Amino acid sequence: MTTAQITVLAGDYIGPEIMAAGLKVLAAVAENQNFDYDLHEMPFGGAGVDQEGDPLPAETLKSAQESDAVLLAAIGGPKWDGAPKTPEKGLLAIRKALNLFANIRPTYISPAMQQYSPIKNEKPVDFVIVRELTSGVYFGTPRETTADYALDTMRYTNEEIERITRVGFEMAMKRRKHVTLVDKANVLDTSKLWRKIVAQIATEYPEVTYDQSYVDAASMKIIADPGQFDVILTENLFGDILSDEAAQITGSLGTIPSMSRGTNGPSLYEPIHGSAPDIAGKGIADPLSMVKSVAMMLANSFDRQDLSDQIMASVNKTIEDQIVTPDLGGHANTAEVTAAIIKNI
Amino acid sequence: MTTAQITVLAGDYIGPEIMAAGLKVLAAVAENQNFDYDLHEMPFGGAGVDQEGDPLPAETLKSAQESDAVLLAAIGGPKWDGAPKTPEKGLLAIRKALNLFANIRPTYISPAMQQYSPIKNEKPVDFVIVRELTSGVYFGTPRETTADYALDTMRYTNEEIERITRVGFEMAMKRRKHVTLVDKANVLDTSKLWRKIVAQIATEYPEVTYDQSYVDAASMKIIADPGQFDVILTENLFGDILSDEAAQITGSLGTIPSMSRGTNGPSLYEPIHGSAPDIAGKGIADPLSMVKSVAMMLANSFDRQDLSDQIMASVNKTIEDQIVTPDLGGHANTAEVTAAIIKNI
Ligand SMILES: CC(C)[C@H](C(=O)O)[C@@H](O)C(=O)O
Ligand SMILES: CC(C)[C@H](C(=O)O)[C@@H](O)C(=O)O
Repeated sequence: MTTAQITVLAGDYIGPEIMAAGLKVLAAVAENQNFDYDLHEMPFGGAGVDQEGDPLPAETLKSAQESDAVLLAAIGGPKWDGAPKTPEKGLLAIRKALNLFANIRPTYISPAMQQYSPIKNEKPVDFVIVRELTSGVYFGTPRETTADYALDTMRYTNEEIERITRVGFEMAMKRRKHVTLVDKANVLDTSKLWRKIVAQIATEYPEVTYDQSYVDAASMKIIADPGQFDVILTENLFGDILSDEAAQITGSLGTIPSMSRGTNGPSLYEPIHGSAPDIAGKGIADPLSMVKSVAMMLANSFDRQDLSDQIMASVNKTIEDQIVTPDLGGHANTAEVTAAIIKNI
Repeated sequence: MTTAQITVLAGDYIGPEIMAAGLKVLAAVAENQNFDYDLHEMPFGGAGVDQEGDPLPAETLKSAQESDAVLLAAIGGPKWDGAPKTPEKGLLAIRKALNLFANIRPTYISPAMQQYSPIKNEKPVDFVIVRELTSGVYFGTPRETTADYALDTMRYTNEEIERITRVGFEMAMKRRKHVTLVDKANVLDTSKLWRKIVAQIATEYPEVTYDQSYVDAASMKIIADPGQFDVILTENLFGDILSDEAAQITGSLGTIPSMSRGTNGPSLYEPIHGSAPDIAGKGIADPLSMVKSVAMMLANSFDRQDLSDQIMASVNKTIEDQIVTPDLGGHANTAEVTAAIIKNI
């Protein structure tokens, strides 16, 4: 087995704190397990702006492109507000450059996490949002600001919809075989195109049932009855909003990883939350989202489900033992949670 | 005092059922109170399509334009799916034709309603979403569908942003004097323009504090800590999604009214929910949203806060007495709830 090449983008504020935790857990789980890897730590986001004048420096992109996987912690913050090149631009740029068109965000409320959920629902919640990540109003042209108006363009090609739809249906095949397309087809032309293409692709997956929900209705269902979802398939902006809402019902953003993949080339793994400037430097950031991002990477980029399962079992045990950071109402700090996870491995 | 002219658009499915309830309550509250009115019942939405081949028939629009206020119940449904002119087109058209650029959606969890809320939060929740209603990606041009792609345009002029911002800040002046602008300024050019214009207008209201939230973060805060909001000011699409989410945390969509207004000309009052085809004809639709829309109309279009207060007090008493429809876990039907409200007036 060749040595896994992993580009490490620690980013800003709590980014380096949780990345350190994630890498410690990776080292612990890999030990004597025949998993060899090299880490390439590169500046990105605000750190890229500060060190190289660019949120995605050329060297960083090159390293990512040559790697088997990319780990990203979190970027951005008030320091770069109004900067000509914001950290967020780097995030959008790396998604585009690596063609990471599929963003996969799990929403799962484990029995141990139930108590932290802000909603009263007690039925099982286990769904995945498959969000299109490299098109829509995030990237559509033209984009214009004049003295009198501004405009953004929400654009989707058939092909862009097709490929993300396949990711959604493939994912459903490995799960409970149900897809919900979320759109605003009563208003948007792009949504009407999504409906048409998804209906076509759906015929290739006769075992998968599917339905549609308008985005406004979906934002209600996530609160009222999240157990109804298996795979939510949606475009970039709706996926942004709904995945944060979905993360919130689990009780802590600080625990949720995500995966972004393209057709080939490296996938990128990152927490779904931001860089939390308010708690940076205090050593109390929740490392779980980063640790779980590492687990997702091992299973999906390196076919090491075994190592991934070990991490996840250990994370669950740590939560059950209530060794958790303040975002989950606990008193442990980042280092203590990380140590507990490593001990439980 | 002249006779109030009210155009009545009952619409589809449960629309006529709840409209009947709203009009009964209006008749009861107006009796011997020196409030005279004429009702003009006109076809609209699916009913417009069926009767006149148009979701907004010319006669209906004319009646609305000549009225002092418009009451709308609910439109749309599976019957018109895929129709060349959908009921929703009529809704968008009447908003545009009456220049109803400001949509005002209250989110209030009264002590009596607390038990119905699906979230654990028990702090007071009382905020208003001020949603821009006649621009953005709902109306922006160009809008195109070709063999290979589709596109929608999200466009805002300075002036469109200015006038809705003033509505938001005026509203805040009558409330707790705080505005939260919701946007996606880390990605969208239109959002950046919103930030710029809102910052300018804000200087005219030194007593009002204001902050910003990205739309994805706002979708979390509405669940995690809705008590932090006073006035949420936002563009059309974000307002659509967040106002439904906000409605959901109150426990029942079936209880929430809204007001849409322009610069002059009639305002329009309507429940924020849809036509609920699944329960139509059963006589169990919740009339509260329509009854509260009538109350909003009396206060805002006819300066009869007294009558509005009477209705609201009676509605609250009816909820406290647990005379509520199944959406609130009750066993009463539409007619019984309506009768109880009238009795309590
Ligand atoms: C930081 C921002 C540009 C980004 C997005 O909107 O995609 C973030 O919210 C996310 O969801 O990863
Ligand atoms: C029916 C639909 C076009 C409408 C909208 O999106 O504005 C509805 O959801 C609303 O919020 O009034």
